[in-house]
Amino acid sequence: MSIMLDVNETANWLKERDNFLILTHRRPDGDTVGSAGALAQGLREIGKTAYILPNPEITPRYAPYMSDYLSPADYCAAHVIIVDTASTALFPKNGEMYFDQISLCIDHHPSNTLYAEYTCLDASTASCGEIIYEILTRLNDDVSAKSAECIYVAVSTDTGCFSFANTTANTLRVASLVVQAGAPHVKLNRKLFRTKSQARVKIESMIVAGLEFYFDGKVAIASISNEMMAHAGADEDDIDDITSLPGVVKGVIAGITIRELNGPHDCKVSVRTSPTVNANGLAARFGGGGHAMASGFSLDKPIAETKAAILNEIKDFLPSE
Amino acid sequence: MSIMLDVNETANWLKERDNFLILTHRRPDGDTVGSAGALAQGLREIGKTAYILPNPEITPRYAPYMSDYLSPADYCAAHVIIVDTASTALFPKNGEMYFDQISLCIDHHPSNTLYAEYTCLDASTASCGEIIYEILTRLNDDVSAKSAECIYVAVSTDTGCFSFANTTANTLRVASLVVQAGAPHVKLNRKLFRTKSQARVKIESMIVAGLEFYFDGKVAIASISNEMMAHAGADEDDIDDITSLPGVVKGVIAGITIRELNGPHDCKVSVRTSPTVNANGLAARFGGGGHAMASGFSLDKPIAETKAAILNEIKDFLPSE
Repeated sequence: MSIMLDVNETANWLKERDNFLILTHRRPDGDTVGSAGALAQGLREIGKTAYILPNPEITPRYAPYMSDYLSPADYCAAHVIIVDTASTALFPKNGEMYFDQISLCIDHHPSNTLYAEYTCLDASTASCGEIIYEILTRLNDDVSAKSAECIYVAVSTDTGCFSFANTTANTLRVASLVVQAGAPHVKLNRKLFRTKSQARVKIESMIVAGLEFYFDGKVAIASISNEMMAHAGADEDDIDDITSLPGVVKGVIAGITIRELNGPHDCKVSVRTSPTVNANGLAARFGGGGHAMASGFSLDKPIAETKAAILNEIKDFLPSE
Repeated sequence: MSIMLDVNETANWLKERDNFLILTHRRPDGDTVGSAGALAQGLREIGKTAYILPNPEITPRYAPYMSDYLSPADYCAAHVIIVDTASTALFPKNGEMYFDQISLCIDHHPSNTLYAEYTCLDASTASCGEIIYEILTRLNDDVSAKSAECIYVAVSTDTGCFSFANTTANTLRVASLVVQAGAPHVKLNRKLFRTKSQARVKIESMIVAGLEFYFDGKVAIASISNEMMAHAGADEDDIDDITSLPGVVKGVIAGITIRELNGPHDCKVSVRTSPTVNANGLAARFGGGGHAMASGFSLDKPIAETKAAILNEIKDFLPSE
């Protein structure tokens, strides 16, 4: 069992040690990358040696927020830290060798399996970045503009620029403080939320055209095949955050996105729900997990069979009239 | 000339008086309605009589935030207040009788013409709601959940849920505090930002399909004709905030939206720009105004001629290579 630390204890734990390697989760998003970048920067600012393990799946969208901290191949860390990662199943390929060697996990997922020696877990926060912010304020008097930028990326991307249901007063408080500390939020918002590539515009319109509605319009299912991706000229960056799309249509309380991955028998499913539908419970039926209103899982089935399987289970999670 | 008041003085001014009528601007948006609602509620909580003049152009989207405060036809106010309104040209039709009788204007537009007897102006805020928040905290110890909800509507809608370039650390701070005070932000975000009607989805796709690009893709022009609106079955509510759409495409630094209004010779133009393009300056060429990165004006011309007129002027505002 893992030893639980609060943010004060975590800051002290970091102060007492040195030579850190920080891991991010596979299919890295803004929260894991921004959290890792902010932590590496904050540790370096108090004189520590800290690197981030390169993530083979990093996309150009988030690469800038960890590129200054990438560990050289011969780096020998004394303490391995991982951020925003609920279980070892979410480790990147090149991080699997650290399965049993994680000294500290900093996370906000209630489904965290407590696989690390020490765990700093706060499931009340919308993003791991909020926890990192608290730790950094305890490591150092000020949060630097560079850390602030990474934290803004983490907090804003995990909350859809503060519009998702996971956003709290604390999310907005931390965002305000890192903007005050110099996070270039106007530039970041423009890049992360207010700029769409032509490919994004195209794939969005294809997805909207193919939306299917079930249970009197309460459930919307979006499907993204590799063929659609190729046709739109879209890459991973172009469909970042696309999982919120089906839930946007009026009346929908469960928005499902089925993404074909490495072939026609490999689907990744994202579930986004209103408070009345337990997203975590639905994902658990398929061996996945996440949060109450945002979860995910994978199935080794084609899109059509994945859809049928979901429709068969989801009826147990819809509120009765 | 108007007498300028800061938020402390404005709170004292309100405390010393009673029997208020609050006006909103024509084509009312979330900021003017939310500001008026929060102010009326806050004044009532300290025992004052305060009503809001019904706005003939109110839409169902924002009506709930002022509906509890509508003035009866025979209400005789001692002091008329207007919020979020830069000039008398923006008064609603039924408010024109108050042109010379505005006791207090609370506003955040740098272009405010100081037409009121007293003016509380803070052009550094993204929304008028932020100023109202400061005034309410000086009227009363706590901001009630009901005022908090109205302020959240004002602040969030004027900043595109904190994603527009006008968002500041203070915007996020006020948002955090009103969420803490009980603003139902999850419900509001869902309604205001994360729910699209079928008509909205349809009109958006039509606008995207008709987007025109000029000056190497730096300028994007969206046109919305009454015919398009009718075809999509869209009303005013469906195109709320649509002016941010053309600026979303990568590479665009000036996004123009031309909206045909009461016939083919009446166009409303909205300008949204990056920091390198002076939106206020462009609008001023046509007798309009607004902010550095968001402005508007009207032209008595058909869409095609409006477009030609803008393209002729905008070249003076684009940065040289």
